[in-house]
Amino acid sequence: MTPGSAALGHVRDRVDRALQAFVGQQRGVLLAAGDDLRPGADSIAGLLAGGKRLRPAFCYWGWRGAGGPDCPEIINAAAALELLHAGALVHDDLMDASDTRRGQPSLHRQFEARHAGRGWHGSAGAFGMGVAILLGDLLICWTDEMFHASGLPGDALRRGRPVLDRMRTEVFAGQYLDLLGQAAGDETVAGALRVVEFKTAKYTIERPLHLGAALAGAGPDLAGPGGPRAGGAGGTAGDGGDGSLAAAYTAYGLPLGIAFQLRDDILGVFGDPAQTGKPAGDDVREGKRTVLLAIARSRATAAQAQVIDRYLGDPLLDDTGTAEVRAAITGSGAVAECERMIGRHVREAIAALDGAPMTGEAREALAGLAVAATARDG
Amino acid sequence: MTPGSAALGHVRDRVDRALQAFVGQQRGVLLAAGDDLRPGADSIAGLLAGGKRLRPAFCYWGWRGAGGPDCPEIINAAAALELLHAGALVHDDLMDASDTRRGQPSLHRQFEARHAGRGWHGSAGAFGMGVAILLGDLLICWTDEMFHASGLPGDALRRGRPVLDRMRTEVFAGQYLDLLGQAAGDETVAGALRVVEFKTAKYTIERPLHLGAALAGAGPDLAGPGGPRAGGAGGTAGDGGDGSLAAAYTAYGLPLGIAFQLRDDILGVFGDPAQTGKPAGDDVREGKRTVLLAIARSRATAAQAQVIDRYLGDPLLDDTGTAEVRAAITGSGAVAECERMIGRHVREAIAALDGAPMTGEAREALAGLAVAATARDG
Repeated sequence: MTPGSAALGHVRDRVDRALQAFVGQQRGVLLAAGDDLRPGADSIAGLLAGGKRLRPAFCYWGWRGAGGPDCPEIINAAAALELLHAGALVHDDLMDASDTRRGQPSLHRQFEARHAGRGWHGSAGAFGMGVAILLGDLLICWTDEMFHASGLPGDALRRGRPVLDRMRTEVFAGQYLDLLGQAAGDETVAGALRVVEFKTAKYTIERPLHLGAALAGAGPDLAGPGGPRAGGAGGTAGDGGDGSLAAAYTAYGLPLGIAFQLRDDILGVFGDPAQTGKPAGDDVREGKRTVLLAIARSRATAAQAQVIDRYLGDPLLDDTGTAEVRAAITGSGAVAECERMIGRHVREAIAALDGAPMTGEAREALAGLAVAATARDG
Repeated sequence: MTPGSAALGHVRDRVDRALQAFVGQQRGVLLAAGDDLRPGADSIAGLLAGGKRLRPAFCYWGWRGAGGPDCPEIINAAAALELLHAGALVHDDLMDASDTRRGQPSLHRQFEARHAGRGWHGSAGAFGMGVAILLGDLLICWTDEMFHASGLPGDALRRGRPVLDRMRTEVFAGQYLDLLGQAAGDETVAGALRVVEFKTAKYTIERPLHLGAALAGAGPDLAGPGGPRAGGAGGTAGDGGDGSLAAAYTAYGLPLGIAFQLRDDILGVFGDPAQTGKPAGDDVREGKRTVLLAIARSRATAAQAQVIDRYLGDPLLDDTGTAEVRAAITGSGAVAECERMIGRHVREAIAALDGAPMTGEAREALAGLAVAATARDG
C-alpha cells in the first residue's frame, strides 16, 4: 500500500459509512411521501456506494493540515461533497448522453429501461431524463443538509459555508464554459485548460482543501468575486503566495487538478473498461473536448487529424475505430506530452507543500494523494 | 387593493430588491470565471425579475405570526425560496418541454435559439437542455447561499435549516410521483391530489410558513420521517391539531395549497394568456395530469371523454381544439366542482387561523393571502 492509497483509505471507509447512514435516513423521508419512491432511493444508494471519495479526502486533509483534530464530524462534513458530486454526475451523464457510470447503467438509462420494460405511457427517454433531473437535484440539495447536520460547531460551519458556495458556483460555471466551448468549436489547448481549471482543479482539489481549512479557521478570503485571494481568517489578503495555508493549498491544488484531469483524459481514450467502469474509448465516442485531444489536434499530421475527426463523437465507434484513434493520438506525440505535463504538475504541487504552514502528517498525506490521484488506472 | 394583495405587495417589493442585490453579486462571481457567462447571468436575472413571490410571503408571515419582528434579514431568508423556485421552474419547463415561462421563452428554448442562431456545432436542443440543467442547478444551490447570508442569527438559521431541507426533499419527491403517475397512467383524482399535496401544498404554503415559524423559534418537530408532527420548539409532538402554531400553519396550509393548485388547473385550461404568461390551453397541450382533468374524466359522458382524450397531450392543439376541450370539461361539471372545492378549502384554511396562537396582524395577512392566492387571474 502506497502512502497515497493509505491516505485515501483512511478517509474512504469512514466516508462510506457516513454516506450510508445519511442516505438510509433520507430513504425514510422519501418513502413517507410514497412507497413508489423506492426505486429512486435504491438508485441513489447504488450510485453512492461507488467512487474514489477524492473530494472528501482533500477536505479532510485540508482540515487536518490546518490543525483540526480527527473526529467523526469532519468526516460527515467532507462526505457531503460526495452528494454534490453524485448529483453533478447524474446531470453530467444526462447532458453527455452517457450510458454507464461506475460500471452500471447511468441513472437516466436505468429509468428509461424501467419505463420501456413496463410499457408505460409517453416517451421512455423523457421519463429517464425527468427522473435523472429530479434525483440529481435532490442529491445536490442533500449536500447542504448533510453539511449542516455534520455536528461541527456553528462557528465552523459559518466559516466553511462561503467556500462551499463558491465551489458550487465555480463547478457549474465550468460546466457551462465546457458546453459553450464544445458548441462554439473552441479546439484550443488554452480553452480546454480554462474549463479544467474550474470544472476540475478548483472543484476537485483546491476548494475541498479550502473548505477543510475554513472549517478549521484558516480558509481563504473570498471577498472579491474572483478568488482565491488567500489568507487565514482575519489574515491579510493576497493573490496566492502570501505564505498562508490557503495560498499553499491553491499552489498545490491547481497544478494537481490539471494533472488529475490529464490522467482522466488518457484513461478516457486508453483506459481498461474493467478499471474505469466506462467502455473503451468512451471520451472519443462522446466527442469530449479534452486537453489530450486538443494537444493531439495541435500536433497531428494531416492523416492523424483525419482519423481523429472521423471518429470523434461517433456513437457507433467500435474496437477497430478505437484502435485507429489511439494510434493517431499516440503517433501525434500527445500522450507523451500529457505524461510530461502530469509529471511536471505533480512535482509543482508537491513542491508547494514544502515550507507551507501545515502539520507534517497532512503534508505527507497530501504528497501521497498527489501520486494516488494521478498514477491511477481507473 | 384587497387585504391579500396588500399583504403580498408589502413583501414583494422588498423581496424583489433583495433578489436583485443577490443576483448582482453572483454575476460578479460568474463573470470572474469567464465573460462568456454573461448570457447565463442575464437569463437568470430575467427569470428572477418576475413571479408572485408567494413562497417568500408565506415565509415572512410565518415568521411574523410567531412574533418575529419586521426586518431586512427575514426578507433575505424568505427571498432565498424564490431561487429554489426559479431553479425548479427551469428544470420543470425542460421536463415538460414548455416553450414559455412568465411570458418569455423558457430558459432551455432561449439557449436553443442562441445555438441555432449562431450556427454552432452539435444539437441546439441538447445545448439548450445542458444550459437549463446547469443554470437550474446553480439557482438551487444559491438558495442555501442566500439563506445563510441573510443576516439572521446562527441560532435562527440552525432552527430553520431542517425545514428548508424537508421542503426540498418533498418537492422533488412530489415531482417524481407526478412523473411516475403520468407514465403509469394513473388518472385517479386521489393520485392527482397526492401529487398536489407534496408538489404544491407543502412546498408553496405549509413549509414556507413552517420555515418562518422555525426561524422565529416555533417550528414543527421533524424528528419522524413523515412530518409534520407539529409542535413548538421544545413543545410536545402531535399530528397537527395539538394547538401549536406549526399545527395551525399545517391546518391552514394544506387545504389552501389544494385550492391554490385547483385555481392553477382552471387557469391552465381557461386562463387568458395575457394574464398567465402561458399560451391558451397550455395544460391540455402538455397533457398535464391535473386534478381538474381527473375530475372531468371521472364525470365525463362518453362523447366528452372522447374530446378530452383526442386533444390531451396534442402539441398541435389550436384555438378550435382548445374551445372544444373547454366545452367538454365545463360540460362535465368539473369546473363547477373545482370552484366548489376551492371555496370549501379556502374556508377551511381561514377557519384554521381562528384561535391559533399567532399575532393578529399575521392572522389578517394570512386570511388575505388565502384569497389572493386563489382568486387570481394569472
